[in-house]
Amino acid sequence: MTRQEKPLVVAIQGEQGAFSHKAALDFFGPDLQLLPQPTFDALFAAVTDGAADRAIVPIENSLAGSVHENYDRLWASTLHVVGEVQARIRLCLIGRPGASLNTVRRVASHAVALAQCRTFFSRHPEMEAVAAYDTAGSVMDLLRGDGPVTQAAIASRLAAELYGGKVLVDGIEDHPENYTRFLVLAREPRPRSGSTKTSLVFTLENAPGVLYRALGFFAQRGLDLTKIESRPLPGRPWEYLFYADLLGDADEVEEALDELRTFAPVLRVLGAYPGRS
Amino acid sequence: MTRQEKPLVVAIQGEQGAFSHKAALDFFGPDLQLLPQPTFDALFAAVTDGAADRAIVPIENSLAGSVHENYDRLWASTLHVVGEVQARIRLCLIGRPGASLNTVRRVASHAVALAQCRTFFSRHPEMEAVAAYDTAGSVMDLLRGDGPVTQAAIASRLAAELYGGKVLVDGIEDHPENYTRFLVLAREPRPRSGSTKTSLVFTLENAPGVLYRALGFFAQRGLDLTKIESRPLPGRPWEYLFYADLLGDADEVEEALDELRTFAPVLRVLGAYPGRS
Repeated sequence: MTRQEKPLVVAIQGEQGAFSHKAALDFFGPDLQLLPQPTFDALFAAVTDGAADRAIVPIENSLAGSVHENYDRLWASTLHVVGEVQARIRLCLIGRPGASLNTVRRVASHAVALAQCRTFFSRHPEMEAVAAYDTAGSVMDLLRGDGPVTQAAIASRLAAELYGGKVLVDGIEDHPENYTRFLVLAREPRPRSGSTKTSLVFTLENAPGVLYRALGFFAQRGLDLTKIESRPLPGRPWEYLFYADLLGDADEVEEALDELRTFAPVLRVLGAYPGRS
Repeated sequence: MTRQEKPLVVAIQGEQGAFSHKAALDFFGPDLQLLPQPTFDALFAAVTDGAADRAIVPIENSLAGSVHENYDRLWASTLHVVGEVQARIRLCLIGRPGASLNTVRRVASHAVALAQCRTFFSRHPEMEAVAAYDTAGSVMDLLRGDGPVTQAAIASRLAAELYGGKVLVDGIEDHPENYTRFLVLAREPRPRSGSTKTSLVFTLENAPGVLYRALGFFAQRGLDLTKIESRPLPGRPWEYLFYADLLGDADEVEEALDELRTFAPVLRVLGAYPGRS
């Protein structure tokens, strides 16, 4: 499906310079055509409709946890997981040209980024944090037209470079162990060869011991369950969809899934791909 | 600790008439003194500091899923789970006296409540949904002072009754199977007698099969794992805290926990209490 001559069209949620953009560059290299989308719904639709070849979707942050709404969108979508990539979330205080740390009074960014810089703000009580729709978008807005040197934004270094902002402080996030894991989505599944990780979703009957039995199909083969996430099953209060990531040999995963299939009312493989670890 | 003469002071997040208020009345009966708090952090602090005897905390909605931030607050807090209660989330369109369904053009409510009434809004394109900080608070604001009959709010029937609003339509939520489960928190644990449900949190080593082995301690005794939730372990990327709810005999739960304790680096019982099911 990929056209070798033309660059791959990769959709992200957010503006150029978003951490999803950084993840896309890390995964695909520099020769890609970025397709920024305003919302995650638009992001999934861009690949489904053929406007983009791939989507880069944040699924989990090492501090904030899963992006549960994107698990729900995976379930509702027909797209396949064909890869994963993780980006270190290193947040920069970015000013206009001429700004310095001392001039800044108002700092715009996405609420999640602001919340991850509490220590920085407590050391700088002269600065007011202002919630914006996007990290990179707040840098774009900052550099568009004229504005006072009292205004700044929090985003990636990439955003500063793209929009001509000045990095006033690099690494102002509270915890350096701040990573986001992204899934790469496509309309077609990836060939199984070379796959080491399998993402799946399943339901279970409502009875004691069923999750234990389901996980047994994996554990008995030494497959490593690197992630399990539960989400509500709409219309069935207190029943759940279980999302699981398995690391291990593709054939052994197949055997385990054949067993699970006889036991789980619903089982769907979201994708098999080369895993991060 | 409870003073029999004085009513129990029960803290909730949100205003009078919030679904947490309804849950508090269902659990404790009418003789309680409500202590509304602006945020969940303030709610936990109210009980910790002694301003309230109990807190009612939403932990899970049957459509939206877990309230993950409140799991994180349970972990960070010293409070104990002493009960649970669930409330049906039945959403009413509430107007000012004199309003009717035909006069309404602007509808305020919490974003989650608005999102749960998509079908209603698609049938009423003349109405604009406006995000507010609280369901019941939007009714309080609606009825405070003068305002046009074009304005309305979405909240519980209880909120309409408390603030003198007029229920224009009852049950405008998309899915009738819409329930929220609340935990009841106190400074002291509940005596174990009569407990059928145990809530706990534990960590596991990062190795294949560990979750399977941990769940085995429960499954081998026929204990019913009614809920499992994972949350990130701060500073340990891709490692997790597991929250579990177990239904079953208190002595068998104790035995299972004694086994799990030898295996899980961290294990904490959040509370044992009479379970809903």
